[in-house]
Amino acid sequence: MQSFENQQIRRFVDGVWTAAVPDTLSVEEPLEIQLCHGPGRSVQSVSITMRTPGNDKDLALGFLFTEGILQSPELLETIHMAPASNRVLISLKPEFSIDLKKMERHFYTTSSCGVCGKASIEALEATHVCPVQAPAWSFEPALICSLPEQLRAAQEQFEYTGGVHASALFDRAGKLLALREDVGRHNALDKLIGLYFQQGELPLSQHILLLSGRASFELLQKAAAAGIRMVCAVGAPSSLAVATAKSLGIALVGFLRKDRFNLYTEMQHL
Amino acid sequence: MQSFENQQIRRFVDGVWTAAVPDTLSVEEPLEIQLCHGPGRSVQSVSITMRTPGNDKDLALGFLFTEGILQSPELLETIHMAPASNRVLISLKPEFSIDLKKMERHFYTTSSCGVCGKASIEALEATHVCPVQAPAWSFEPALICSLPEQLRAAQEQFEYTGGVHASALFDRAGKLLALREDVGRHNALDKLIGLYFQQGELPLSQHILLLSGRASFELLQKAAAAGIRMVCAVGAPSSLAVATAKSLGIALVGFLRKDRFNLYTEMQHL
Repeated sequence: MQSFENQQIRRFVDGVWTAAVPDTLSVEEPLEIQLCHGPGRSVQSVSITMRTPGNDKDLALGFLFTEGILQSPELLETIHMAPASNRVLISLKPEFSIDLKKMERHFYTTSSCGVCGKASIEALEATHVCPVQAPAWSFEPALICSLPEQLRAAQEQFEYTGGVHASALFDRAGKLLALREDVGRHNALDKLIGLYFQQGELPLSQHILLLSGRASFELLQKAAAAGIRMVCAVGAPSSLAVATAKSLGIALVGFLRKDRFNLYTEMQHL
Repeated sequence: MQSFENQQIRRFVDGVWTAAVPDTLSVEEPLEIQLCHGPGRSVQSVSITMRTPGNDKDLALGFLFTEGILQSPELLETIHMAPASNRVLISLKPEFSIDLKKMERHFYTTSSCGVCGKASIEALEATHVCPVQAPAWSFEPALICSLPEQLRAAQEQFEYTGGVHASALFDRAGKLLALREDVGRHNALDKLIGLYFQQGELPLSQHILLLSGRASFELLQKAAAAGIRMVCAVGAPSSLAVATAKSLGIALVGFLRKDRFNLYTEMQHL
């Protein structure tokens, strides 16, 4: 499996749209880590993590070790991964068994439900019905380019620490409505969406979401849940973020600066 | 609770150490999200997430909504958070109950075991006994400053996509030994540690870890598990990353550039 993939995108630079040009994305795909152990040689799913393919066996071993599940390489019998799969099976020698109960609190998966990107998107579509397949409104590229400076001016905490993510919501006219910051990018977005959820103001189908960093599958999933149709990121999107946006009809912009951005999805609403 | 906190640090700039100066860190603390629901009004812990304090009720609601657990604000009875606590209790109206079974795959916590930073560090100390309380070797600041350029030169994928995290291991002489990239920062570090785990080459107590981004609690925890005593980050550390490094005797450098860095921990090994 590739760790990056090419897509056709369009760039907006200094007031001008380019023709469609190839662009390279980091691949994001789920990896399921399975453990085969104990007297019955039972196979248990330990974790699903969203990762870039490559060195997957190392990733599985590093995860199990640093989470305190696997203490020594001497416990290992085999590590198996079928070609082009998203599943690593780690088998322990028959005499060893792991008490997975003690790691209940360690268990962490993403909110994806499948072990390939396609399954993840399908599960997402099943749980979050999106009422609109594209913003029913259009906007000026210049308006999009104005967002990062507004974010930065309002981002109080970053000023002090240089170390937080931000999620900001703008209206269709490009006016900043709310900004939330957190060391975790998904937390910043959850705080923003939670605000509107509590006020009964979802879906946010007439708004623009700006992310201070990169755009991953999880962030697109959360935006989709809130009915957001337009996501702009200052950083790069992953392959699965782009695929999710395309599938759900969300407009996705990346590498947003005051004079330029990349558009990863359809043009009709720009 | 504060969303940022001040610490005394020392800076190395253009070949010269400053005296101790105040520096502002983004606070990172665990938040436990609890749900009270159903006929028996039972309280269940749904998730523990590492977050920056502030807007915690919004965070809990946003998380429950975007993960598909809570569909409407009309289900809510009360949202309670004791002052200065790290726990939000969301109570549903008596007539509503949530089937948490269906969200088993959504359950995600960090590997922290407590709901305050101190408990997290204590749990970490309990599971990962650190043999050395500080590097038994010293190094030149100029050597540290040479690391990011080596990382960037070797970071193949970032060149193409601008969108991946990297973890790199260097020896005491500042020579790059291994580099791993991933859309997830914890994955990049797991891949790196897994490589050495499989080869039976842990602990990495004579090595330097370089992180391409920010340093969070989870990354310090993983470094500690691998016996790494020196962690350098190109980005900012969180408050809990610094507290963890201090508690475990790991030297922690942040904002590392070719001509400068911040040192967040003791000086004796520099």
